[in-house]
Amino acid sequence: MNSNENLRLIYDQLSELYRLRSIYALLDWDQQVNMPPKAIKDRADQLETMALLIHQKKTDTEFGRAIDELYEHIDSLSEPDQVNVRETKWELDIQRKLPDSFVAEKAQATTLGYNAWVDARPADDFKAVQPYLEKVIELCKRQVELIGYEEHPYDVFLDLFDPGSRTSAVKPVLLSLAGELKELIPSISKQFQGQKRLDGHYPEARQCELIHRVAQDLGFSFETGRIDRTAHPFMASMGSKDARIATRYYESDFISALYSTIHETGHALYDLGRSVEYAGTPMGESTSHSVHESQSRLWENLIGRSHEFIAYLSRLLPEYLPEAADIDESQLWKLINHVEPSLIRIEADEVTYSQHVVIRMLLEEALITDTLSVADLPDAWNDMYEKYLGIKPESNKNGVMQDVHWYIGLIGYFPTYALGNLYNAMMMEKISEVIPDLSQQVERGEFAPLLSWLRENVHIHGMHYRAPELIKRITGRDLSADAFVGYLKKKFLSQPLIAGRSSV
Amino acid sequence: MNSNENLRLIYDQLSELYRLRSIYALLDWDQQVNMPPKAIKDRADQLETMALLIHQKKTDTEFGRAIDELYEHIDSLSEPDQVNVRETKWELDIQRKLPDSFVAEKAQATTLGYNAWVDARPADDFKAVQPYLEKVIELCKRQVELIGYEEHPYDVFLDLFDPGSRTSAVKPVLLSLAGELKELIPSISKQFQGQKRLDGHYPEARQCELIHRVAQDLGFSFETGRIDRTAHPFMASMGSKDARIATRYYESDFISALYSTIHETGHALYDLGRSVEYAGTPMGESTSHSVHESQSRLWENLIGRSHEFIAYLSRLLPEYLPEAADIDESQLWKLINHVEPSLIRIEADEVTYSQHVVIRMLLEEALITDTLSVADLPDAWNDMYEKYLGIKPESNKNGVMQDVHWYIGLIGYFPTYALGNLYNAMMMEKISEVIPDLSQQVERGEFAPLLSWLRENVHIHGMHYRAPELIKRITGRDLSADAFVGYLKKKFLSQPLIAGRSSV
Repeated sequence: MNSNENLRLIYDQLSELYRLRSIYALLDWDQQVNMPPKAIKDRADQLETMALLIHQKKTDTEFGRAIDELYEHIDSLSEPDQVNVRETKWELDIQRKLPDSFVAEKAQATTLGYNAWVDARPADDFKAVQPYLEKVIELCKRQVELIGYEEHPYDVFLDLFDPGSRTSAVKPVLLSLAGELKELIPSISKQFQGQKRLDGHYPEARQCELIHRVAQDLGFSFETGRIDRTAHPFMASMGSKDARIATRYYESDFISALYSTIHETGHALYDLGRSVEYAGTPMGESTSHSVHESQSRLWENLIGRSHEFIAYLSRLLPEYLPEAADIDESQLWKLINHVEPSLIRIEADEVTYSQHVVIRMLLEEALITDTLSVADLPDAWNDMYEKYLGIKPESNKNGVMQDVHWYIGLIGYFPTYALGNLYNAMMMEKISEVIPDLSQQVERGEFAPLLSWLRENVHIHGMHYRAPELIKRITGRDLSADAFVGYLKKKFLSQPLIAGRSSV
Repeated sequence: MNSNENLRLIYDQLSELYRLRSIYALLDWDQQVNMPPKAIKDRADQLETMALLIHQKKTDTEFGRAIDELYEHIDSLSEPDQVNVRETKWELDIQRKLPDSFVAEKAQATTLGYNAWVDARPADDFKAVQPYLEKVIELCKRQVELIGYEEHPYDVFLDLFDPGSRTSAVKPVLLSLAGELKELIPSISKQFQGQKRLDGHYPEARQCELIHRVAQDLGFSFETGRIDRTAHPFMASMGSKDARIATRYYESDFISALYSTIHETGHALYDLGRSVEYAGTPMGESTSHSVHESQSRLWENLIGRSHEFIAYLSRLLPEYLPEAADIDESQLWKLINHVEPSLIRIEADEVTYSQHVVIRMLLEEALITDTLSVADLPDAWNDMYEKYLGIKPESNKNGVMQDVHWYIGLIGYFPTYALGNLYNAMMMEKISEVIPDLSQQVERGEFAPLLSWLRENVHIHGMHYRAPELIKRITGRDLSADAFVGYLKKKFLSQPLIAGRSSV
C-alpha cells in the first residue's frame, strides 16, 4: 500500500478504537456513578466484551503493518502525521514485545493481587498478600526483560505513564526535592499546630451548587461536561466534548468536595482543551500522566489554595454556603492550606504530598532491581516514612497496604503525581511573566486568560511534544525541583500566615 | 456440527449480542438522561459503531447455518432450546428476506423522513413531509412483497411488534372496541364537564421522593434499577438486573410524573421479572410489545387509577407532597381519571386512548393496501377523528403529524398500545378470581401478591408463549374487547363518580 492508503487505514482504525475506548469509558463511569448495585455481573461482561474488541483492534496485523511501513518513510509525512505514526508505533512496539501468554499471566496475577489486597487490607494482614505481590513483582521483572531498556530497568515503567522520562533525570530531581522538603516540613507544619479544624454542617445540596459555580468560573462548561456524586473522586472523558467530573461529599467538610472538584476540573479542562480534529489520535491525546497531573494540581494548589483564590471564594460563600460565611478569609486560608505530616498519601497536603511519592518511587525501583525483597517491604516502608516524614505507620493497613497500585501491577505510576507538582510550578513561573496581573485576575474570579495560556501552550499540543520536551519549550529548562521548592518557601515561609492575602 | 456444538455456538452468539445490545441501550439512555449537549456528534459515532457490531453478529453466516441445522431437528431439543431456536430462526428468516440494499434504502428514507418531520411539524406543513412519507410507504409495500404473507399484507407489520398476531383476529376486535367506545365516551366524558383541574405548585424534589416511594411500593427495587429525569418518559433495560425509568416533571401537575412513573414501573417489572438464566435468548425476552404494554397499563390504569390505589396515595400525600394533601380522595380520583375526547394521543385518557389507536390502525392498513394515498391522508385522518372521537383537528400539527411513527417507518406499532389495554383487562378478570381480596390489598399498599402472579403467569415465560397463546393459557379465551369494555362500564357508569371508593 502507498502512504496515503496506509494513513487512511490507520486513521480509520484509530477512529474506531477511539469510539470503542469512549464507550468503555462510559460503561466504567456509569458503573461508578449510576449503576444499580446488582447490575455488576452484567456490567463486568459488557466491559469484558469492549476490552476484547479494543484488544482485537489494537493487535490487528494490517494496522501494525501499515504503521511499520509509514514509519520507514516518516520524514516524508506532515508533522501531525509524523507524531501520530511515531507515537502509535512506539506503543505498538511495546505491545508486540509482550507475548499473549505473558499478558494473560499478568492479567490473572493482578486480578488475584487485587482480590487479595481487598481482603487483606482491612485485616492488616500483609502476609496474606505477600505471595500475590511477589508474583506481580516477578512478572514486572519479566516485563523488563521482554521490553528491554537502554539505561535503567525502571525506565520501562516510567515510559508507560510518562513516555520518554528517564530514571537518570527523574530520580536525582525527586531525591533533591525530598531533601529540601525534609528541611521545610517541620518549620511549615509547626505553624499549623493546634489549628482549629472545620466543625460545621454543610448540606450536600449547597456544596453541590457551590462546586458547580466554581467549576464553571474556572472555565468548565456544562455543555461539554457534568459533575456527579461517587464514592471515589475521578474524571473521565467519553468523547472530545464530554468530560465528566465525579466527587464525593462530606457534610462536615466542604473543603473536600470543593478541592477534589477543582482538581478534577483541571483534568477535565486539559481533556477539553485538546484538538477535536485529532481526537482519538496521539495528536489529540494527553502527552503523559505527569502533564495531566500538572494541570489538575495547578488549578487545585497553585491557583486554588492561593490567598487570591480564597478571597474570591469568600465572596461566594454567603450566597452558596451561608453555613461557612462566618469563616474569615485568613481562617479559611489556614483551613485550606493546613500542613501536617500524615500517613495516608491521598489525604496529604500540598507540602508533604511529594514525600509520599518519593518513598514509593525508591521502594518500587528497589523491588524491580532486586535490591529489596517483598518480604522486607513493610519494614523498608516504615523506615522511609520515619526518614522522610518523621512519622512511623503503626500498621501495614495505613502503611504499605494503603494504595492498590502495586497489587494490581502499577509500577512507575506514582512518580507522575510528584512530577505534576514540579511541572506546574515550572509552568507557573512562566505564566507569571506572561500574565503579570494573574493575582488580581484570580481574586476577581477571572480565569479565562490563564486557561487560554494553558490551552495554547499545553492542551492543544496533545502528544506533539513529550513531557520533557514540552516543559523545555515552555520554560527553556529541564525538569527541576527549584520552582516548586521556591513556590513553597515563598508561600509558607516568606510572609506571616495569619495576615491574609498579601497582594492586591 | 452436531446439535450440541450448534447450540453452544448460538448461545455464545446470543450472549455476545445481548452484551452489545445492552451497551447500546446504555449509550442511548445516557444520551437521553445525562449526556452534555455538545457530545451529540461523538455519541452518534459511538451508537453507529455499536449498531454495526450488532448487525455483523446478527448476520453472521455461521450463526445462520447453526440455527437452520438445529431447526431441522427441533423436536429433539429441550423445550427451552426449541423456543430459542424457533424464535431466533423466525427473526432471522425475516431479516434474510430483506437484501442489504433494501435495508440501506429504508434506513436512509426513514432518516430523511424523520428530519423532514422535525422541521415540518412546527410549521404545520404536511406538504413538506408528503414526498418523504410517500417514499417510506412505498418501501413498506416493497417490504410486504419481499417478506410475503399468508392472509393479509398488514400481518407483515403486526409480526414485527406482536409476533403471531393476525389482522384477521386483531382488526375485528379493535373495530368492535371502537364501536363500543363511540357509545360510551359521550356519557362518560359529560360527567367530567366543568371539572376543576390542578392549580397548585408541586416542587420537583418532593414529586421525586413521592415517585420513588410509589415505585418501590409497587415492587421496583433500587438495587436493580433507578429513576431519573428526562425530556420524554421512557424505560430502558441494560441488563437483566438494570432497568431504568426516566420521567419528566411539571411543577404545576404532579399527576403527570407520578402516572408516567407507574406506567414505566410496569415496563420495568416485566423486564426484571424474566429469567436471568435465559437472559439474552428469546426465553428471556419480552414476548411482544403488546404484552409489554399490557404490563405498563395494568399498573398505570387498572391498579393506579382505581379508587383503592387513590386511597393508598391519599395516605402518602401529607408526608410526601403536603402541597396536595388538601385534595380529598374523591377530588383526586376525578383529577386522575378525567375523561375528555382530545386530539393528542399521548395526552389521552384511559377511555378515549384506544380510539386514537384504532384510527391509526385503519389508516396505516389503508396506506399499505393502496386504498388510501398519502396525499389524501390528512383529510382521512380528520374525518376519522370526527367519526370516532367527535372532534376535528384544526391543524395537521395536532393531527396527522403529531406522532413520529409513520415518518420513521413504524407501521404496525400503534395497535400494540390498544392490544395492551385489552390483554390487561383480560388478565385482570383472571387475577380477580385468584386474588379475591386484591382491592383491599391495593388500598393497603400491598402489591406483592399481584406482582407474584404477573411474574409467574406472564414475566417468567419470556417468548415461550407468543401473545395470543399466552392470553389463551391465562384466560382460556381468545383476544376480545369484552373484558376491557366491561371494566370501563363498571368503573365509569355503574357507580356515582362523586362517591369515592365503593369497596372496603
